[in-house]
Amino acid sequence: MNIAVMGYGVVGSGVAEVLAKNHDQIVRKSRQDDMQLKYILDRRTFPGDVNEHLVVSDFSKIIEDDSVKIVVETMGGLHPAYEFVLECLNAGKSVVTSNKELVAEKGCELLKAAQEHNVNFLFEASVGGGIPIIRPITQCLAANDINEIAGILNGTTNFILTMMIKEGMDFDEALRLAQRNGYAERDPSADIEGHDACRKIAILAALCFGKHVYPADIETEGITKITLADVDYAANWGGVIKLIARAKKLENGKITAIVSPAFVEYGSQLAGVDDVFNAILVRGDAIGDVVFYGRGAGKLPTASAVVADVIDCAVHIKERKDFGWGEGEENYVQSYLDTENALYVRFTSDNKEKALSDAQEIFGGVKVLERKDAPANEGAFATPVAKEGDLREKLAKIDGITVESVIRITDY
Amino acid sequence: MNIAVMGYGVVGSGVAEVLAKNHDQIVRKSRQDDMQLKYILDRRTFPGDVNEHLVVSDFSKIIEDDSVKIVVETMGGLHPAYEFVLECLNAGKSVVTSNKELVAEKGCELLKAAQEHNVNFLFEASVGGGIPIIRPITQCLAANDINEIAGILNGTTNFILTMMIKEGMDFDEALRLAQRNGYAERDPSADIEGHDACRKIAILAALCFGKHVYPADIETEGITKITLADVDYAANWGGVIKLIARAKKLENGKITAIVSPAFVEYGSQLAGVDDVFNAILVRGDAIGDVVFYGRGAGKLPTASAVVADVIDCAVHIKERKDFGWGEGEENYVQSYLDTENALYVRFTSDNKEKALSDAQEIFGGVKVLERKDAPANEGAFATPVAKEGDLREKLAKIDGITVESVIRITDY
Repeated sequence: MNIAVMGYGVVGSGVAEVLAKNHDQIVRKSRQDDMQLKYILDRRTFPGDVNEHLVVSDFSKIIEDDSVKIVVETMGGLHPAYEFVLECLNAGKSVVTSNKELVAEKGCELLKAAQEHNVNFLFEASVGGGIPIIRPITQCLAANDINEIAGILNGTTNFILTMMIKEGMDFDEALRLAQRNGYAERDPSADIEGHDACRKIAILAALCFGKHVYPADIETEGITKITLADVDYAANWGGVIKLIARAKKLENGKITAIVSPAFVEYGSQLAGVDDVFNAILVRGDAIGDVVFYGRGAGKLPTASAVVADVIDCAVHIKERKDFGWGEGEENYVQSYLDTENALYVRFTSDNKEKALSDAQEIFGGVKVLERKDAPANEGAFATPVAKEGDLREKLAKIDGITVESVIRITDY
Repeated sequence: MNIAVMGYGVVGSGVAEVLAKNHDQIVRKSRQDDMQLKYILDRRTFPGDVNEHLVVSDFSKIIEDDSVKIVVETMGGLHPAYEFVLECLNAGKSVVTSNKELVAEKGCELLKAAQEHNVNFLFEASVGGGIPIIRPITQCLAANDINEIAGILNGTTNFILTMMIKEGMDFDEALRLAQRNGYAERDPSADIEGHDACRKIAILAALCFGKHVYPADIETEGITKITLADVDYAANWGGVIKLIARAKKLENGKITAIVSPAFVEYGSQLAGVDDVFNAILVRGDAIGDVVFYGRGAGKLPTASAVVADVIDCAVHIKERKDFGWGEGEENYVQSYLDTENALYVRFTSDNKEKALSDAQEIFGGVKVLERKDAPANEGAFATPVAKEGDLREKLAKIDGITVESVIRITDY
């Protein structure tokens, strides 16, 4: 059986490496006579690379070769990845991808195409890098009604927040360190603005709740506005700030889906997840909370998840996986304003004591927070849980304050 | 498709409950027209129970009914579970079990019987209760060479140790509380002596490393000798005491496999696992460390894992799972005495200072540990890492001490 890889970047070259290194074991587990990497599609050339002779720039080579049964897509981005993958599926080739943007935007459609041509479209590596999460959700937890899923899904932002919390670096300094360590790209916006986490929670929500969730419908906020002052107030409150992506089934048939920085209590399984590690919490009716923890990115972890999918495709070459991933619906994702939350608020005011006393009255009780060396005109508090829209309306009613920061408070 | 359950205890009745409660979803995911529980085998009767009419006491009813394609074994114990399961497999019925003793002792043989009759033998619930672990190891991490696996695999002992560490209860008091809460049985020996964890690590080691591991070959030590003094010294060292089950592949083709209390550093993913929760750490060559966390026992978590296996059997009724679980070998498990470890030692001596100075010299440097209100004749230290047999020989050379406690130190 032959394999093609499209996109010879970090993950694609990792896939080639794992296929070569664990070749015999992979052939045995795939129950094939052999598994060979036959083509690598890339516009670039790789002089001196061990796989130089496999590189082609013409996609038709792959599509026209019937010996290629499994195509790995590690190009990233929506175009031309989408067109290439669709064409592969239509040509009767199974596809494995690590491309979260592709799966989040086009998952439902591509799974349908795979079904029509009796091949598989697998994407374990698109969420959580090498952490097994897609298969556990769809198979191991199949007897559960999953009500809620939440996680730290982006290693770059988690590294930055960890450096702010543990080393007292400010955001810019921590971002520069992440870039120096190769954890953040030169243009880090997809990570730090929350878009990467947004795509991943869209995929998880579709798998858990059965309907496509469009990333654009998910309220998404990054970590660029987080300051060391907020980190200190979070500690005073009793926890840390993490970029949390979460989705929850509601009784009205809708779901909530939000990506934003959030206060997480010390002692929670998510609070202790540091550096570039990811963790995903799944709440099922029978199992309760289950947490999956590991490296959410990186060449070899991600490549190993891709190759596990390749093996699965080879073993089940005649059988189709059913993810129960249905079409999306308008207004399926409820506005965050209608969602129950508690909020942390930091403000400045010329009359801080009056503002805090007003907050107590307007919110019906707030928890006042403190930090060392706070400017005299700075105050902070945590509200009770209520509809977020109501909380924000009430906040606007406190006279004479400038709101400097609002961060959600979770109960994970 | 019809199902039979053998053993209507906690887990068996949970399976019946989950099958009924999530019936429609289970039928859909199983891709069957229907999935019905037809028999419950038990010697007892259950007057007034919702499933009273399904209870039979005669095993031949199940074996002779060709409409029963999947049999769930939740009887526990080795006999007659082993004979019944073997007969079901030989009769061409797939079997799902939560019985760790059965899988640890007879896994290789029963998988062989399943293979010969082209049916499945699945056992996700036998380790980690509802935490998905068997399938992630065998499928999701298939592209990895797994080198090491370690975990907190017994909720009862973890609850007892948590109460000792956090509430300052002594062992007997914590055990009584565990019994009052229903976490420990009236005869708690299988848990507190480490046998339950031993069976689970035997199963995991077989799956990770490909050869049957007999529980009798695993050095197993329980938590009955742990005192609050040891808990305090662990804190002074910088961590907590957990009952750790672990197995590791060695370069000489053998493995180590040990169950014992162990010092675990604060900040480790295993140190923060409290109460009845379990966690399993898997170390792969490509993925690095992955941790799975959740409830390792309990009626519904375990039942949900059993039912997920039932669904898998129904979907793959014509296809056999291959776990790569080969026969065991003599001397496959290396003696713990030849294994590299560090040890914590607590002793009493009439000349404590001399004993500590002797220890420094004999071990080539030890870390002296302290606790508040220690008796004047009590001392404690942590050794460097070395072959455990050598460490124990050296310990015997320190004159004039009575060794009160020896606990292994891990690097997880």
